[in-house]
Amino acid sequence: MTRVALDLMGGDRAPASVVDGALLVAEEAPGVEVVLVGPPEVAEALLAERGQSGRFEVVAARQVVEMDEDPARAIRAKPDATVRVCARLVRDGVADAMVSVGSSGAALAAAVFTLGRLRGVTRPPLAAVVPAKAGPLVFLDVGANPEATVDLLAQYALAGAAFATVRLGLAHPRVGLLTNGVEAGKGDTLRKDAYAALAALPLLFAGNVEGRDVPYGGVADVIVTDGFTGNVLVKGMEGMAAMLTELQPGLAEVTGHLSPDVLGGAVLLGVDGVVVVGHGASSPQAVAGCVAAADQAVREGLVTRVAASLAERLDRRRDDAGLGVAP
Amino acid sequence: MTRVALDLMGGDRAPASVVDGALLVAEEAPGVEVVLVGPPEVAEALLAERGQSGRFEVVAARQVVEMDEDPARAIRAKPDATVRVCARLVRDGVADAMVSVGSSGAALAAAVFTLGRLRGVTRPPLAAVVPAKAGPLVFLDVGANPEATVDLLAQYALAGAAFATVRLGLAHPRVGLLTNGVEAGKGDTLRKDAYAALAALPLLFAGNVEGRDVPYGGVADVIVTDGFTGNVLVKGMEGMAAMLTELQPGLAEVTGHLSPDVLGGAVLLGVDGVVVVGHGASSPQAVAGCVAAADQAVREGLVTRVAASLAERLDRRRDDAGLGVAP
Repeated sequence: MTRVALDLMGGDRAPASVVDGALLVAEEAPGVEVVLVGPPEVAEALLAERGQSGRFEVVAARQVVEMDEDPARAIRAKPDATVRVCARLVRDGVADAMVSVGSSGAALAAAVFTLGRLRGVTRPPLAAVVPAKAGPLVFLDVGANPEATVDLLAQYALAGAAFATVRLGLAHPRVGLLTNGVEAGKGDTLRKDAYAALAALPLLFAGNVEGRDVPYGGVADVIVTDGFTGNVLVKGMEGMAAMLTELQPGLAEVTGHLSPDVLGGAVLLGVDGVVVVGHGASSPQAVAGCVAAADQAVREGLVTRVAASLAERLDRRRDDAGLGVAP
Repeated sequence: MTRVALDLMGGDRAPASVVDGALLVAEEAPGVEVVLVGPPEVAEALLAERGQSGRFEVVAARQVVEMDEDPARAIRAKPDATVRVCARLVRDGVADAMVSVGSSGAALAAAVFTLGRLRGVTRPPLAAVVPAKAGPLVFLDVGANPEATVDLLAQYALAGAAFATVRLGLAHPRVGLLTNGVEAGKGDTLRKDAYAALAALPLLFAGNVEGRDVPYGGVADVIVTDGFTGNVLVKGMEGMAAMLTELQPGLAEVTGHLSPDVLGGAVLLGVDGVVVVGHGASSPQAVAGCVAAADQAVREGLVTRVAASLAERLDRRRDDAGLGVAP
């Protein structure tokens, strides 16, 4: 049984969509137990309306971090914020994972503050598994840290490779650097500097990749970028898919698995606990999808295995100059 | 009659795809005259192969800027580069416009070097007209300058608004800033600083917009970003559309106008001449599309009208504190 702490107040359509998402989980995933985290009377009123009084355990949390607050400051100022209480439940072993579809910055800040970080990660990135045409790939950072540095991109590369090893079963995932042209030397200053740094890591560096390589896949199993670009690209791709599906409804069968409702369940990589963050606009289905993503991460032992894979790569980093560049 | 100087040697599939593109233009656009710019014997051999000897005027240029060269340096070092000769033909009035599907950095450098810039533009951006669901919108910079500053984003906003006035017929286009969330205060440092700068310009500022607003449209007529993000997003959206079309061929009717072959004809805005740049992977159809985009820009008097609109906005910028923020 996986116990998931679910932020009742996070998201544009919360709390109703969160409660409805929890009810979907209860119906569809008998191996998952949801704990709602928020004002108990709010949870209870919504459950009563739905004829489901007392359906879930509710842990009280009476503060909310709004989308327009500075996340780090708000987390410090609000000890009773829903995402902080969620993180405490994970830290104390009361829950196996936490899920929020509210401010991703707040979830990140609460997770770092309360759960701490894995060795080798200073700013945890949000990693999404993109169902690319050539097969699934890990794409990160999709929005945790809008500002990046060469060192952060190198951290994402190592953490993303560790994630791909666990999730995609690849011993030597190929890691590509997202930029505006495949030739070495393309990109802004950050990318030009990061190219050499990534090539020197103990991983298979696939060189520069372009925007089209994210939906197509095939050239890299992990694609690394800053959280600003990653967020803009994911939303642009999802928007394009959603827009074309509206124009040609038959496409839904093909694009269904690309909708925000699925891609939304990104994992905060490099914190010492399972933390899944979804789109603010998440529907009940999307909330349930995030809970399912958290359950998968718990069952596969994601945190322990990423920590081990990351530690192993960090040790190799000290020992040698890297595996070299993928062909 | 519009005379277009066409870079024979630019692009991954050049020179053959360029010659085939020119032949398409000759067939389909009787009002356009193509001048091929490159080694005459290369042009002639390809034309002879196709039974079209002497079909086009050829202007000799014997140097090529490769994709992996530093564009600015290469342009200075190669006075006989195809793109420099193209730009000279435009400067001297021998051609009305130039088109290249080679290195966009080289086309940019040659254009700035030879044609000069319009008042108010220090680094010309590449502007694309995106056929968004709610109607066409101007998206820039899609790749001319991977590095941006607040001042450059403000220039793009003014130049993009001027372009939208000319191309889309909008007296007061709404200008949005691409970022990773709609709330003011979202984004990296560049975006946070640019928000205030754009709000103070003499234009209708629509605030922050997100990745999905590029394919959907509706919230802004002009969307401003740096050339790194713009390039990645356009390629990601195009890749998503192309990938879905491969999965569901019936979609081609819907996505046809979103293919790289069409979106590729981006205009270099803010140089004193019509310069159109296409994807390196351009097919003959894409080359012909770029020539058509150049012809349209010439016929609508784009450069003169953008210069006038830009000058008018720059004068207002001195006179008042802006039109204010769009509702």
